[in-house]
Amino acid sequence: MDEETDGIARLARRTRIVLVRTSHPGNIGGAARAMKTMSLERLVLVAPLRYPHADATARATGADDVLERARICTTLEEALADCTFVIGASARQRTLPWPLLDARTAAERVAASEEETAIVFGPEQSGLDNRELERCGALLRIPTGPAYASLNLAAAVQIVAYELHMAARVAVARAPETPLATADELEYFYAHLQRVMEAADFLDPENPKHLMRRMRRLFNRAHLDRNELNIMRGLLAAYDKLREEGIER
Amino acid sequence: MDEETDGIARLARRTRIVLVRTSHPGNIGGAARAMKTMSLERLVLVAPLRYPHADATARATGADDVLERARICTTLEEALADCTFVIGASARQRTLPWPLLDARTAAERVAASEEETAIVFGPEQSGLDNRELERCGALLRIPTGPAYASLNLAAAVQIVAYELHMAARVAVARAPETPLATADELEYFYAHLQRVMEAADFLDPENPKHLMRRMRRLFNRAHLDRNELNIMRGLLAAYDKLREEGIER
Repeated sequence: MDEETDGIARLARRTRIVLVRTSHPGNIGGAARAMKTMSLERLVLVAPLRYPHADATARATGADDVLERARICTTLEEALADCTFVIGASARQRTLPWPLLDARTAAERVAASEEETAIVFGPEQSGLDNRELERCGALLRIPTGPAYASLNLAAAVQIVAYELHMAARVAVARAPETPLATADELEYFYAHLQRVMEAADFLDPENPKHLMRRMRRLFNRAHLDRNELNIMRGLLAAYDKLREEGIER
Repeated sequence: MDEETDGIARLARRTRIVLVRTSHPGNIGGAARAMKTMSLERLVLVAPLRYPHADATARATGADDVLERARICTTLEEALADCTFVIGASARQRTLPWPLLDARTAAERVAASEEETAIVFGPEQSGLDNRELERCGALLRIPTGPAYASLNLAAAVQIVAYELHMAARVAVARAPETPLATADELEYFYAHLQRVMEAADFLDPENPKHLMRRMRRLFNRAHLDRNELNIMRGLLAAYDKLREEGIER
């Protein structure tokens, strides 16, 4: 097993997909297949309307094993037992004060954590109700076009499973076990970068914030881990050192 | 229409999804729905085995309009007429000398280009044949787990449509119209970065390439556009300038 495969396997062991009150058994089969293509295997069904069902088996194709090993629970509480990170998929804008993450960011958080994680999908028509959403620590939204946001349930599971898979690969492509830089560490870095850019006469005095916004956007996209941040800060420090030597002379 | 929506609309206008010899009409409907959720609307069917069909309409749900406006062609050539960028989806490792892109990278290329683009999906069982793949300028692969790579066709279209949607959003989040840095430009940047890191005694003489690999990984992840690259190079030049002043004194 190579390093990348191992990263995904470790994520898969602590990550379950929970489908709540699913109406169409075909979607349960489709979700099982979607999971298996991305190496996920822990499926939990909460009070499915019709299950087991021939449509579920038909849509699962080669993922019958995921379906067979699916846990069936009567309540969401039972499905979430021992989870420390619960993410609820929600298509609608909610007024709950939970952090709302897009699918990619949510997957990165899961990959960067070591938590026992559940990602919860509600019924096809209505989604999770408020009581169910309150059991979640974060909400996940899949970005869609403005005209038609009605993702099929199995398609939504496919996108989330794919993003988890991609995030696990990227997480392994980093130095192993290196934590991501925290928001505070990034703020120190941006402040340091701004001082160096000012010293190098880089910032437009008319619009000093414009360039910094660009730099923030760039490094936010890159999701620096702590080692990478330290290298970048080392480069800024090397500039400061040269500059102090210049001033002393 | 806000800027982001407009970016996706522009990509959608010049991007078609081509399904070749699809066996199951349900997959055609599922693909139409998958496209519509991500604002894509140009579906082309090449010699579908059974179409029109009630299963297609049933799976399309609210995307009947995409289905109704789908073009039906008898040959792939006809479907690709006037395309300047043709990407073939392929699950298998191929020996063709075409560039092989993962879905995310392919979507970024499409979003960064202004080309009339087709993304082509083969039949469920066999995929595109070699003659069809030869019509493509690049191959697209969706990363899957090692144990089971058999993505459902509509699920594959969903992932690709989602990545196109995400890439169009990111492309708009950059300065508008700024092209991505080319591979050559990135190589100049890495060479310059290495010279600065050497001058600053940053590279481990035992293993000078280790840190550079990390830096490459970081900036490859960030997908720099040309403006961002110029800012980074400007910072390196500011270091060089200070250093020369120090040496002159």
